[in-house]
Amino acid sequence: MLVSLSVSICVCRASSIQEDSAMENIVTEKKVEESHRQDSADLLIFIMLLTLTILTIWLFKHRRFRFLHETGLAMIYGVLVGVVLRYGIHVPRDISNVTMSCHVNASPATLLVNVSGKFYEYTLKGEIGANEVNDVQDNEMLRKVTFDPEVFFNILLPPIIFHAGYSLKRRHFFRNMGSILAYAFLGTVVSCFVIGLLMYGCVLLMKQVGQLGGDFFFTDCLFFGAIVSATDPVTVLAIFNELQVDVDLYALLFGESVLNDAVAVILSSSIVAYQPQGDNSHTFEVMALLKSFGMFLGVFSGSFALGVATGVVTFTKLRDFPLLETALFFLMSWSTFLLAEACGFTGVVAVLFCGITQAHYTFNNLSPDSQDRTKQLFELLNFLAENFIFSYMGLALFTFQSHIFNPMFIVGAFVAVFLGRAANIYPLSLLLNLGRRNKITSNFQHMMMFAGLRGAMTFALSIRDTATYARQMMFTTTLLVVFFTVWICGGGTTQMLSCQHIRYRNLLFQMLLCPDFMTPIVGVDSDQDNPVSSERRSTKQESAWLFRIWYNFDHNYLKPILTHSVTFISVCVSNNPLPSHQNECQLKDDDSDLILTDGDINLTYGDITVSTDASGSHTSGGPAFAGAATSDDLDRELTYGDHELVMRGTRLVLPMDDSEPPFTDPHHRMRM
Amino acid sequence: MLVSLSVSICVCRASSIQEDSAMENIVTEKKVEESHRQDSADLLIFIMLLTLTILTIWLFKHRRFRFLHETGLAMIYGVLVGVVLRYGIHVPRDISNVTMSCHVNASPATLLVNVSGKFYEYTLKGEIGANEVNDVQDNEMLRKVTFDPEVFFNILLPPIIFHAGYSLKRRHFFRNMGSILAYAFLGTVVSCFVIGLLMYGCVLLMKQVGQLGGDFFFTDCLFFGAIVSATDPVTVLAIFNELQVDVDLYALLFGESVLNDAVAVILSSSIVAYQPQGDNSHTFEVMALLKSFGMFLGVFSGSFALGVATGVVTFTKLRDFPLLETALFFLMSWSTFLLAEACGFTGVVAVLFCGITQAHYTFNNLSPDSQDRTKQLFELLNFLAENFIFSYMGLALFTFQSHIFNPMFIVGAFVAVFLGRAANIYPLSLLLNLGRRNKITSNFQHMMMFAGLRGAMTFALSIRDTATYARQMMFTTTLLVVFFTVWICGGGTTQMLSCQHIRYRNLLFQMLLCPDFMTPIVGVDSDQDNPVSSERRSTKQESAWLFRIWYNFDHNYLKPILTHSVTFISVCVSNNPLPSHQNECQLKDDDSDLILTDGDINLTYGDITVSTDASGSHTSGGPAFAGAATSDDLDRELTYGDHELVMRGTRLVLPMDDSEPPFTDPHHRMRM
Repeated sequence: MLVSLSVSICVCRASSIQEDSAMENIVTEKKVEESHRQDSADLLIFIMLLTLTILTIWLFKHRRFRFLHETGLAMIYGVLVGVVLRYGIHVPRDISNVTMSCHVNASPATLLVNVSGKFYEYTLKGEIGANEVNDVQDNEMLRKVTFDPEVFFNILLPPIIFHAGYSLKRRHFFRNMGSILAYAFLGTVVSCFVIGLLMYGCVLLMKQVGQLGGDFFFTDCLFFGAIVSATDPVTVLAIFNELQVDVDLYALLFGESVLNDAVAVILSSSIVAYQPQGDNSHTFEVMALLKSFGMFLGVFSGSFALGVATGVVTFTKLRDFPLLETALFFLMSWSTFLLAEACGFTGVVAVLFCGITQAHYTFNNLSPDSQDRTKQLFELLNFLAENFIFSYMGLALFTFQSHIFNPMFIVGAFVAVFLGRAANIYPLSLLLNLGRRNKITSNFQHMMMFAGLRGAMTFALSIRDTATYARQMMFTTTLLVVFFTVWICGGGTTQMLSCQHIRYRNLLFQMLLCPDFMTPIVGVDSDQDNPVSSERRSTKQESAWLFRIWYNFDHNYLKPILTHSVTFISVCVSNNPLPSHQNECQLKDDDSDLILTDGDINLTYGDITVSTDASGSHTSGGPAFAGAATSDDLDRELTYGDHELVMRGTRLVLPMDDSEPPFTDPHHRMRM
Repeated sequence: MLVSLSVSICVCRASSIQEDSAMENIVTEKKVEESHRQDSADLLIFIMLLTLTILTIWLFKHRRFRFLHETGLAMIYGVLVGVVLRYGIHVPRDISNVTMSCHVNASPATLLVNVSGKFYEYTLKGEIGANEVNDVQDNEMLRKVTFDPEVFFNILLPPIIFHAGYSLKRRHFFRNMGSILAYAFLGTVVSCFVIGLLMYGCVLLMKQVGQLGGDFFFTDCLFFGAIVSATDPVTVLAIFNELQVDVDLYALLFGESVLNDAVAVILSSSIVAYQPQGDNSHTFEVMALLKSFGMFLGVFSGSFALGVATGVVTFTKLRDFPLLETALFFLMSWSTFLLAEACGFTGVVAVLFCGITQAHYTFNNLSPDSQDRTKQLFELLNFLAENFIFSYMGLALFTFQSHIFNPMFIVGAFVAVFLGRAANIYPLSLLLNLGRRNKITSNFQHMMMFAGLRGAMTFALSIRDTATYARQMMFTTTLLVVFFTVWICGGGTTQMLSCQHIRYRNLLFQMLLCPDFMTPIVGVDSDQDNPVSSERRSTKQESAWLFRIWYNFDHNYLKPILTHSVTFISVCVSNNPLPSHQNECQLKDDDSDLILTDGDINLTYGDITVSTDASGSHTSGGPAFAGAATSDDLDRELTYGDHELVMRGTRLVLPMDDSEPPFTDPHHRMRM
């Protein structure tokens, strides 16, 4: 088995060797220090990029400049810094290269090198293309700026996906569950295969023309289809929230793009796992296909089960210590990811369903203080991770070493992505409309077609493996697809909405016309205007029987068991001296104000927002208000602020007013 | 220059090599996947440890079990898991070893290995002792659980140190500034040299007896002195806060232990940098000493200046977007660290002074919502990092591969640490008392002597380099010193306080006797009872003239320039319809409620706390209260809660009551 192979060891940054061991130590320390300093400087570049992005976002929000979303902005800054790094900075070539030969039989994970009695340990970083070997020495700096792809998958993606799951608008999500699942599962698979087939055609054509410089198999095409089928919730979410777009459209798009990611991850790993046993590994084989399909189902259900399980398990009763609660919540979310990865499932998918479950059940168990803290923590993590990924994308356009820009492939990909999205949305909508009571109208369909941005997940999947020619070309193309969709489609969302005559309510407009609308926006779900009973009835009418059964089971059994909220609510209601509209809303329907809803997101993203901040004071930010505010508006706003205060006040003062004995419910007393 | 040396390449996890490149890819992918899965499982162990710690802390707090602090607990859990990992789990030896020889001249930072035309990149992980080479294969699992030492220094330590700087009780800190600086600088240097000399004596003795198995130079002894001279703020802070110990003692101990860390870091790196030029590198040389001393001064002042500069620069005006503000604040703190490291200064020290400066100036610029968020974020990061380090310490006792337990050295070290602390506290206190108006009494001195725990910084410094025999023995000994001090001294703090008759007020006791005391504890600094004018007078009396000049300059020029608080306060005061006691306190002295004070820390650490939570409701947690609460107490508490509400309410409702035009101050209006 010990086949002797030629090994050339190329030494970068050769050091002179002293006889004295102490001096040698110092040299090693100096080397480590130098490398550490470089690392710090590299990381500093990204931090500065993020800081710059934040400052500009603020400026944009301040000036109500809505064409460019923060993620698009982060990408632009990334591109600029990438250009500077690539062309502006020249690293002096102080590196002497030593190449030697010896015999080794494989590429182990760990190498031990014995230099004059001292052993040095080396860890495998990855494979390098033959053409890059010289680049290794040339572009030390550029290579340093390039992160380990796994960082995206294991560190940056989880908070984003978790936050997405966490902030799913659950009422509308569940009401449109059937359609969302159809788009996310069936639609993504359809899109994946359509894109895969189209790209295969394109690749065959390229081979004919002689434009192809390496292998490109059908599985590669399918893989490309899988990764570009994952639509991104980020940008659309932000814009729709600002504009208060129709809730059903919002639920459809957001739900689809969140679940989409999960499907795309598992689909792509299933495609990679497709391995026929014969000699020619790129032929069709039924067994291998079935195995891949089985893997898809197994990994998905495993990740789903794990996520839901840990989400439910986060059963905190540490109500008196918000810090401990928040820490525990955070750690449980993270351990979901790690557990799934350790079990061979997909961490990202598990985290998604963990987030959904936590928002549905266990979030209600937290004390109000912890709820604020937890929400804000995940919001911050999501914000940082997201902007980091997008600015890194911009940077990668210039700093990534092995881009392959193939115009034909790129054009083909754009066409395929467009057609793939169309093959997802239009036929499925047609089918779904057969069963739906409130149809998905054609302008909704066009909007969904248009809003299929590609983002963080697509990028993370494509950068994960850039070893082969095919993967490198895919990476370059994917980057361009992301850029195009985020800048063009993301920037044009507002225009597209107006063009499609989709109703969206501007908050300012709404405040002037119908002040009653204010109530649902703050803290309470924006679709809470109609009384709870009619709401429940409409849910019954619209949903499928399977979902209705689940809904009833969940509402009657699961929620009471998994949350302490029932006893809590009954206490609140019985002690409530002020039967105000808001109080009823808030107390009777614990769902609506205990999860992240529109109002909460508005707090940070909207530029015309009316929201409640943590200290209970009433905030109305945004320069639009400054411009258009008449004294009437201000008055109304302030009246509302007062109202809001009273509403919160009742919870506090009420035991005194009623002069009742201290509560028997222990965690309620803790809050007082 | 190309000296041929024998290189043995030891292959762990050899893989069979297929001819087919696709199959080879799969094998590599499988290998990477396997390794990734293992990593996830390892990280999961730590997450589970942290979760367990949090749950037990909660239980302890709930049951008012005060002997063991959470850090001590984390260590115990760490030790238990370490034992299980070491003795409980046997990894099957499925690893075939292949050893080959070839020629290489040095240990470069990057290795390129060419296996059958494919290049694999390897990065230098570190040197391995000759006796560990076999362990590498045996204890893959144990080695995997062992983190890169730099993780502690670059990821876990910064938030802890930043939080410490952030939560320095500034009024008392500045009042005792002279003494704190004396203890931290002079004291640490004295302690370092006393311990170094004693250990050198011990080492010489060991050499005589034949107990020494390797080199141990005088610089090693001094290095040991430097790292064990860093006292830890964590445990003492928590206990003192719970017990509301005398504020001066608290300020002295906390201030010392915070600055201590900075001194110890730079001192140890200066000692490492001490390198005489002659052949015998361990002799005394004046030039090298001067160089070391110059380096100490240079690095310290550089780090100090950088920290202060970035702290001041964080000049946020993004008041309307709490998320952006918090993100910016966080990024600026982090970039301070990175910038310092990239410049060759000490990041930890820069972060410390950045924290102090931010708390003093720029924190006041944040909107109230952002202040809460930022505080809570750093609190959480600090909590997680701290408990992680301490549980890792416990784990390292068993999983670290090259412990050297030398009883004689350990006994010597304990004696030296004790004497070193004594040589720091007693002579310095004697000298300081000559100049101080309120003397440091002898029971305070005993308490300071006793409370010199060693913690995270000592550990991080000692694990940073464990290559040589001397360093390994130091690491083992340091670990034991930390364990002893945290468990014995930390656990005995309450007893020691009673024994030394140092006054500390139990909150419950205090509430029953003097309800007026309630005010200062909640949100406001606990030493705010006396009016501001007398406070300022007393500061003038007690401080040295140099400090007085600085204080006046700071108060009259720096603060007004660097914070917007002046205009903000004037607006508040002019519009304030309710001249209640709390309002005046809060508005006139913006220092006291805008930084982390006792009250805030009580919110999370105390087990009998009365505090204000983020939503403005009034919380009184803790089971002690549940046990002893009479209806009188509850009444008083609720009255207070009402009061508190009104106080917050005034800020909200006041423009309506006054029927004034909208505020002219832009950022104030935003908050409304």
